[in-house]
Amino acid sequence: MIVYGDINSGNCYKVKLLLTLLGIEHQWQHVDIIAGETKSDNFLSINPSGKIPVVVFDDGKTLTESNAILSYFAKDTEYLPNDRFLNAKVYQWMFFEQYSHEPFVAVARFIKRYLGLPDDRKAQYESLQEGGNKALQTIEIQLENNQYLVTEQLTIADIALYAYTHVADEGGFDLNNYPNTQAWCKRISETDGYVSMC
Amino acid sequence: MIVYGDINSGNCYKVKLLLTLLGIEHQWQHVDIIAGETKSDNFLSINPSGKIPVVVFDDGKTLTESNAILSYFAKDTEYLPNDRFLNAKVYQWMFFEQYSHEPFVAVARFIKRYLGLPDDRKAQYESLQEGGNKALQTIEIQLENNQYLVTEQLTIADIALYAYTHVADEGGFDLNNYPNTQAWCKRISETDGYVSMC
Repeated sequence: MIVYGDINSGNCYKVKLLLTLLGIEHQWQHVDIIAGETKSDNFLSINPSGKIPVVVFDDGKTLTESNAILSYFAKDTEYLPNDRFLNAKVYQWMFFEQYSHEPFVAVARFIKRYLGLPDDRKAQYESLQEGGNKALQTIEIQLENNQYLVTEQLTIADIALYAYTHVADEGGFDLNNYPNTQAWCKRISETDGYVSMC
Repeated sequence: MIVYGDINSGNCYKVKLLLTLLGIEHQWQHVDIIAGETKSDNFLSINPSGKIPVVVFDDGKTLTESNAILSYFAKDTEYLPNDRFLNAKVYQWMFFEQYSHEPFVAVARFIKRYLGLPDDRKAQYESLQEGGNKALQTIEIQLENNQYLVTEQLTIADIALYAYTHVADEGGFDLNNYPNTQAWCKRISETDGYVSMC
């Protein structure tokens, strides 16, 4: 099994973190987004959409979309409850992540950290702050009386949202405004078998 | 069980379609987005994010995010395969829907159909066409040799993507350019127990 990804991308890192926690052997093939490698002919032959992460299984089948990949590996493990309601709650948070969190927090981080906040992207960067803070506030409220987002232990909902949240400062978001979220990030980083982004 | 939604919203309609196909009794509580009802104090007490659809179960628990709701009701039914790979593929397409399809196709439709394409939204509307067509092309290719997106029968991946695709013309997308997708829409509309959007 080969995982194509860039560890600095939260969407890729979340896959690395789960695979590491589960102790699943894999070959990690670095694909450098900034150097344009996701647009190379070679990579497009693997994933025509030109996006990472991608898992290529030994039989040649491929799986894309970071949270679908988490779902695949977490199935029937402690990271994805089988109870119908809790299972759906995990997905609720993962869809929230892709629709209401990543497009703000991750894109602002990309513009600031990787593009160096150029003048022609400043208006877009500023416009992302409100949505990003709204998403962070939603997490903050959920963690007011909970150690983790869905159950009393780490699930892939936490892993999915941790990926870009714990580096949100790189997109201009001040995590000091979100103390429950800061404590949750620390809690996750202290999990046995944790692997850091860089 | 009460489902709060607006049937003209694809995200709500997809829930209605699955519940109808499964014959699950429910109370449908209409919430008029255009009239601002999702921002009323009453609705915000049900869902603080001010978004529909929302399911409120008899025990008071709530579930949001349309595709997580589909996932809840489809679990252990023919609409969500239990096979690990196929199960993840269904989620792959549902995450694709929320990240790469809905933000283009549904938002363009909203601007055109509901706002009447006002001058100050025209640039945004135009900018959404490329992403929307890219998403439709991705579906079109997948349906080249397949009757449905993941398996040989209807799954919630199809239901999720059908919701906004079959009314994509209302967002300025010409489905005549996507014959496989048109045939797939017709196939879905002919499913036993199908309910239409309006």
